[in-house]
Amino acid sequence: MSKNSSLPIGVFDSGVGGLTVLRALRERMPCEDVVYLGDTARLPYGTKSTNTVSRYAVQCAAELVRREIKLLVVACNTASAVAINPLREAYPGIPVIGVVEPGAQAACRATRNKAIGVIGTESTIAGGAYHRAIHAIAPDARIMGHPCQLFVALAEEGWTDGAVAEAVAARYLNSLFHPASGTENPVVPDTLVLGCTHFPLLAPAIRSVLDRAVVIVDSAATTAETVYAELARLGLTRPEEGCGATVYLTTDDAARFARTGSRFLGTPIAEHDVELVDL
Amino acid sequence: MSKNSSLPIGVFDSGVGGLTVLRALRERMPCEDVVYLGDTARLPYGTKSTNTVSRYAVQCAAELVRREIKLLVVACNTASAVAINPLREAYPGIPVIGVVEPGAQAACRATRNKAIGVIGTESTIAGGAYHRAIHAIAPDARIMGHPCQLFVALAEEGWTDGAVAEAVAARYLNSLFHPASGTENPVVPDTLVLGCTHFPLLAPAIRSVLDRAVVIVDSAATTAETVYAELARLGLTRPEEGCGATVYLTTDDAARFARTGSRFLGTPIAEHDVELVDL
Repeated sequence: MSKNSSLPIGVFDSGVGGLTVLRALRERMPCEDVVYLGDTARLPYGTKSTNTVSRYAVQCAAELVRREIKLLVVACNTASAVAINPLREAYPGIPVIGVVEPGAQAACRATRNKAIGVIGTESTIAGGAYHRAIHAIAPDARIMGHPCQLFVALAEEGWTDGAVAEAVAARYLNSLFHPASGTENPVVPDTLVLGCTHFPLLAPAIRSVLDRAVVIVDSAATTAETVYAELARLGLTRPEEGCGATVYLTTDDAARFARTGSRFLGTPIAEHDVELVDL
Repeated sequence: MSKNSSLPIGVFDSGVGGLTVLRALRERMPCEDVVYLGDTARLPYGTKSTNTVSRYAVQCAAELVRREIKLLVVACNTASAVAINPLREAYPGIPVIGVVEPGAQAACRATRNKAIGVIGTESTIAGGAYHRAIHAIAPDARIMGHPCQLFVALAEEGWTDGAVAEAVAARYLNSLFHPASGTENPVVPDTLVLGCTHFPLLAPAIRSVLDRAVVIVDSAATTAETVYAELARLGLTRPEEGCGATVYLTTDDAARFARTGSRFLGTPIAEHDVELVDL
């Protein structure tokens, strides 16, 4: 396996949500080339068994490795939770970085009262991957997980600000951050991990219902930082000149990928720039 | 194939949404036995290709036919739109009823100004099945389709009333039912078809943003009426005595089926009453 610094970074997700991670990578490393694969034909991963998700993740990685990459980013919380080790075993020559560990590390650095809120999809919260990752770093941390499934639909619909988004954020988060006055010794988190790639789009609405002192940890930004540090450690960063290229791959409907993906990336994706692949 | 009136009615859907159809069947025909299959392992159907949905629908039907049924209800808009004919070809001895045609018929009966609104998932609206079914009955009807994807997530989350549901309903429906005063010759539908099995749960929130004169057509209730009429026509109704039994089948996670399904059915489903099947 070539370890040439000129090779692209490979990124995959079950759909377009991981484009928030691509966006963060682009902001941190504008000169790097990236190949992004969204396995839209088989989403959602969150309701599928561990074995199936691992198998899908290895298939996505195989497509990216076939095209030659210098590092693999798993921009999907479900796959990060269950498939990091199978991926490292399948491709020992390639560094593999998921979104869970960087988010957990950033939360542990940010918290002062060791009370950390984690929001994600139902399956991410039920699976407990962030709990394990945070406790591995800070065994005494109090972790309050809360599924916020509707945020996914809001982000996909593009309703990321305004009255609806703020009402949904308030309904999910008020009990966690504004406990009723009768509650005995309420512990209020001072840090909130956005444990789903869709959620950074809703950060302003989420912020609107939190006290200013609460730190929001965006897995996308912290993952980009971890990727940069790993490339630098391995001497694989690209010279900082010019603008990196992005190749988009999807397993279903390039037009839909381009349309919904543009929202997550924050810049338009042209349909003719999206290549359909069969895993 | 036995055409015994004592056999159950078979119902399938991609998930739990079709339980609103089961609920309507139960209300219309409390003495009939029903076998309900929710293909939760492979949901959503709405983003999959026509061929794949047809294949899944025939597999669901095969499981129900194997258990012996007297009539098959396709309680899924996506499958109703693409798989009715393949199902009728695969099982010529069994009457097959989908949700699209009964909804279209009821809308055509209800409308006075021949302007009909249809709301559904993105794929149902884009596929145009309600448009075709309504135009086959009333070629001069004006049909205004509008995708309301967030209603699905709201119904699954159980947030079917209150401020969030009403704000979402207003945002989706105001442009259709309350056009800006500057609009020239605005045509406002006098009838609204709920073209998704999830939407009957949100009927009160939808009603809250409509003028009182607008008729809401609930596919579930009209489908139950059609099923009753077809059974009566064939002499297959059960004597009206006692209370019919329901068997629940799912292709993934009986606990989750029971939990979310109870909301759609309107009465509790016990986890031990749900049987896991492998198609």
